[in-house]
Amino acid sequence: GYSQLPRQTHGLSGAPEWPVVRGMIPDLSGKRAIDLGCGFGWVSRWMRENGAASVRGYDVSTNMIARARADTNDVAIDYVIADLETLELPEASCDFAFSSLTFHYVEDFARLSRTVHGALTAGSWFVFTIEHPIFMAATHPHWIEDEDGRKTWPVNRYAIEGERRTDWFAKGVVKHHRTMATTLNTLIEAGFSIRRVSEFAPSPEQIAVQPALAEELERPMMLIIAAQR
Amino acid sequence: GYSQLPRQTHGLSGAPEWPVVRGMIPDLSGKRAIDLGCGFGWVSRWMRENGAASVRGYDVSTNMIARARADTNDVAIDYVIADLETLELPEASCDFAFSSLTFHYVEDFARLSRTVHGALTAGSWFVFTIEHPIFMAATHPHWIEDEDGRKTWPVNRYAIEGERRTDWFAKGVVKHHRTMATTLNTLIEAGFSIRRVSEFAPSPEQIAVQPALAEELERPMMLIIAAQR
Repeated sequence: GYSQLPRQTHGLSGAPEWPVVRGMIPDLSGKRAIDLGCGFGWVSRWMRENGAASVRGYDVSTNMIARARADTNDVAIDYVIADLETLELPEASCDFAFSSLTFHYVEDFARLSRTVHGALTAGSWFVFTIEHPIFMAATHPHWIEDEDGRKTWPVNRYAIEGERRTDWFAKGVVKHHRTMATTLNTLIEAGFSIRRVSEFAPSPEQIAVQPALAEELERPMMLIIAAQR
Repeated sequence: GYSQLPRQTHGLSGAPEWPVVRGMIPDLSGKRAIDLGCGFGWVSRWMRENGAASVRGYDVSTNMIARARADTNDVAIDYVIADLETLELPEASCDFAFSSLTFHYVEDFARLSRTVHGALTAGSWFVFTIEHPIFMAATHPHWIEDEDGRKTWPVNRYAIEGERRTDWFAKGVVKHHRTMATTLNTLIEAGFSIRRVSEFAPSPEQIAVQPALAEELERPMMLIIAAQR
């Protein structure tokens, strides 16, 4: 199941995009950070090990928060059970916001963007990863082959935003497809400046070690955005 | 051939994305505008009709520039034959930069972005359309059907940037595929702020009038970016 995924059992070293994500995270020294959809707390702990003064992790899953608490021995990290659809955060209460592979489960991204913008101090960064809309858009998102036998990803319904149901570990998991333009414009309208965008692709070195990653060159699975208040 | 396309024969009214593009163009009153890849000059003339003090259109095609000159009766518009790969522009010499469906033919977009940035006065906007990388990426970019018979677009080689050859009106036309992230990061690195992004999709009203446009909901053909110096 989900908790046996490499990124869950091996933490950040099991997530091939992590070197890129890490490169988009600013210096955390003395910063108050939040981790939206913290899961088992891998990034929450990493942020503290990399200088953050304090970290608060939020997740809607009671089980994940329980496991995060069990795996953390640090009084400057706390974990809170919260639904990002209704989350409220105190104004100017943090200096860095992070989220990994969570926002595609959030229906009202505009509300959440405004909430995060309000919670951040001026100049603070907001870095997050989501499933890429190219990966999510189609009714049947799975590999096909083109006429040369090359691995190919189907795209349809790209402009038709809204629910996508998949059977990923559980039947009928609901994700919310948004175009890349909508994600960027929502951040801009909330007051953020877009600083860097990555559509994660593995490096030649990563492919040499793990040849299966080569298929990620065919289509992006993940979108990573660094924005600044 | 190319010159019989609706957008060439009917001008802006033949380009379904034009209402969106127009909405992303700032007030042009009194502005000195440039039109990079001006073709027959449709947008150059529109900009003058909408307040621009002067317009200079650039295109590499001698034939297009000849036709643009023949179709224009306005001493405040001039047309220049120029290759955007090597174009140089005087510093702070213009107040708005536009380009329509041209930059995917340009190999060195970073150089061009820096050139445009240098040519614009502080606060000036840069609005352009390009072929969307989802549309351009695959080796064989054409409609296929998914298992439900739905029109579907194939994506492969998305992360592999560089030449794409197509047989569009002429054999072996060379385009340069760049990911969406590269286009955005190149603008940001040149000094621009991203203000709005559109992956053009037709409105319900447009589809009612022209049902064939509905397929544009399946995958974006065009990317429109508004950036500001």
